Amino acid sequence: MVDIATRVWNHKWKIDPIVRSLIDTDFYKLLMCQSVFRNKRDTQVTFSLINRSQQVPLARLIDEGELREQLDHIRSLSLTRGESTWLRGNTFYGKRQMFTPEFMEWFESMRLPAYHLERVGDQYELTFEGSWPEVMLWEIPALAVLMELRGRAVLNDMGRFELQVLYARAMTKLWEKVEHLRQQPQLRIADFGTRRRHSFLWQDWCVQAMLEGLGDSFVGTSNCLIAKNRDLEAIGTNAHELPMVYAALARDDESLARAPYDVLADWHEEHEGNLRIILPDTYGTEGFLKNAPDWLAGWTGIRIDSGDPATGAEVAINWWKNRGEDPRQKLVIFSDGLDEAKIIELYEQFKGRVRVSFGWGTLLTNDFRGLTADDRLAPFSLVCKAVSANGAPTVKLSDNPNKAMGPKDQIERYKRVFGVGEQAAQDVIV
Amino acid sequence: MVDIATRVWNHKWKIDPIVRSLIDTDFYKLLMCQSVFRNKRDTQVTFSLINRSQQVPLARLIDEGELREQLDHIRSLSLTRGESTWLRGNTFYGKRQMFTPEFMEWFESMRLPAYHLERVGDQYELTFEGSWPEVMLWEIPALAVLMELRGRAVLNDMGRFELQVLYARAMTKLWEKVEHLRQQPQLRIADFGTRRRHSFLWQDWCVQAMLEGLGDSFVGTSNCLIAKNRDLEAIGTNAHELPMVYAALARDDESLARAPYDVLADWHEEHEGNLRIILPDTYGTEGFLKNAPDWLAGWTGIRIDSGDPATGAEVAINWWKNRGEDPRQKLVIFSDGLDEAKIIELYEQFKGRVRVSFGWGTLLTNDFRGLTADDRLAPFSLVCKAVSANGAPTVKLSDNPNKAMGPKDQIERYKRVFGVGEQAAQDVIV
Repeated sequence: MVDIATRVWNHKWKIDPIVRSLIDTDFYKLLMCQSVFRNKRDTQVTFSLINRSQQVPLARLIDEGELREQLDHIRSLSLTRGESTWLRGNTFYGKRQMFTPEFMEWFESMRLPAYHLERVGDQYELTFEGSWPEVMLWEIPALAVLMELRGRAVLNDMGRFELQVLYARAMTKLWEKVEHLRQQPQLRIADFGTRRRHSFLWQDWCVQAMLEGLGDSFVGTSNCLIAKNRDLEAIGTNAHELPMVYAALARDDESLARAPYDVLADWHEEHEGNLRIILPDTYGTEGFLKNAPDWLAGWTGIRIDSGDPATGAEVAINWWKNRGEDPRQKLVIFSDGLDEAKIIELYEQFKGRVRVSFGWGTLLTNDFRGLTADDRLAPFSLVCKAVSANGAPTVKLSDNPNKAMGPKDQIERYKRVFGVGEQAAQDVIV
Repeated sequence: MVDIATRVWNHKWKIDPIVRSLIDTDFYKLLMCQSVFRNKRDTQVTFSLINRSQQVPLARLIDEGELREQLDHIRSLSLTRGESTWLRGNTFYGKRQMFTPEFMEWFESMRLPAYHLERVGDQYELTFEGSWPEVMLWEIPALAVLMELRGRAVLNDMGRFELQVLYARAMTKLWEKVEHLRQQPQLRIADFGTRRRHSFLWQDWCVQAMLEGLGDSFVGTSNCLIAKNRDLEAIGTNAHELPMVYAALARDDESLARAPYDVLADWHEEHEGNLRIILPDTYGTEGFLKNAPDWLAGWTGIRIDSGDPATGAEVAINWWKNRGEDPRQKLVIFSDGLDEAKIIELYEQFKGRVRVSFGWGTLLTNDFRGLTADDRLAPFSLVCKAVSANGAPTVKLSDNPNKAMGPKDQIERYKRVFGVGEQAAQDVIV
């Protein structure tokens, strides 16, 4: 029976909003936001969209008016009572009251600041300027909107059953990965796929399929809204933007060299346990670990997000050994360009030597490769990064020169300050 | 928004009925029923379920109580006003008023007669006795109920997403066949898959997918209810039960030899055009055509339903040539054990030499092969046939000795009367 009122209601929407909640974002964004709110609240930053896949002509695929409508809709969002209650009341990694009353009060009245959008050739220039804790919350919804609008542009031409078969194929593809992964019952995997997901509904499906198919091996999702709706654990710690902005704020080379550790000193004060995860690659993992203060070796684990993952894990294991720590008590989280075969390979390589976990991103929530003619739904490499802080440009090196970002002279300066030598280049898939 | 009333209503059903309409049946059943109603109304027949796939233990898989509930539900059905209107008013192959007022009046008050059900070992003995025009209408719903209950028994153990992926895989599998078939835009295919379908909803999906994917190449469905609901042409002509019962009623060898032609003489009076399709294999195609009266060569086409299909088509073409007919004006309908590769092969072999059409059955509406562990959803060979008429046993020989049916001595007698020699055996897939 058709629910007539629902149908009429649905027709009243001017648009089909892609992002419908401020907590449809990665959990670590909120953790970092609280840290920034406490430590660097007045820092003025600019975030900018960067399409590393120039062969995807976003401005030809996506109508500018539609993009503006979606972004405007996100600016109209505020935290709902239920979302606030969930953030205030939830237990994250066994800890209650992760978010302070001061932060929650601020968050409840926060609205996302204005955006600047301009078409430049076949790409969009999309930037966000303002105070760091506000601007940083644009990253995930901006990426999700662009990824999903690009998908809709492709789906627009397809027939009803063609669409159903497209999703049938995508479901089958994911389920085959799940069947492959569950042959390793000790595996631990989380969904990290919000930012470059095919769509919200598809991510939600993927998470539920993982839950049924993997059981205890599926430990949670980085997406707060899905975690809330599906009664799952929200997963995440911190990301490159913290050291990037701290570094840009450094007044000289000496404080630049100290910046990545300052970030973690602030973090150390605020967090414990599973939230104490080192992300060492912003300016080269090797130098970072070599110069790290001893208290960092006491942290719970390391997240490997660029470079060859097995090499990164070996570097981490050796570092712990050198600092007198038992790697078998430590956690390595792999989160860069993973697919299920790589996950199993890394798991088999490191199980027993270190605790291993996986943050599975784009190839979990957006693996539409090979499912359409010309592969027009294949995921691509879109990021939204802090490009300046209080007027100074930011720099990222990572363990893969293909992921480096920033003005050329500054990249050279950072390489010198952080002692980064030759790096092996890796293809950036997603 | 949940439609509460609908949900409560759905919970009030004692069972989830598999067959919900008397026209959820093959169109040729109704055509034959009208012919029987006119010519052999008082013939007493017995129809019986025969599971050719003894390895499928139906009585262990299907609860007897559930089976009875489904069969009882079918006995409660009567033709609805809309169904009657559709049958009375529709155009079939361009002809209006296919069904006479007398037949419709009878059909509107018809209820299916009692059934006899008994468990024998791991199988069910299911028989129907009574007047021919009533009993014959049990065939399709009885088969559909048993096929779907067996499917439900397997699906019962599966998780929610596992189920969704099962159907995703089945959709993908069918769509790949559709993509293969549409490379031949001149192909003409109809759905003949009611009797051994996976389920009603699945057949309905398959028909709609064919409609979108194949466009004009999809010419209709044998299922009257789906044809009505989806605004399609209902397809079909006649089947083996007519010559089988006519033959069983023959009093001596001479009238036995004439029986298959008597059937078609009655049919000839009642039908024209696309409904004049010869089904020649009941007692061997070769002898049937050799002894056929000349007026039969004027019929529109021949349906090939057993034996090697290419051989059967060649026999038909040669017969038309020998009778002075132009095969290019004639229609060959292939309908036995087809899958998409075989369809394309036969199409390429015969296009230009004869008009070709395909009645695609079980591997359209029930190809779940390879989709579950142990292949427990693979289709199997279940039939429901007339086994006696006015006390005399029926016999079927067909062009494949593996499809022969009837008492041994009668099979020998029929072979003698119809001059059937050695036959090549073919595996019966479905």
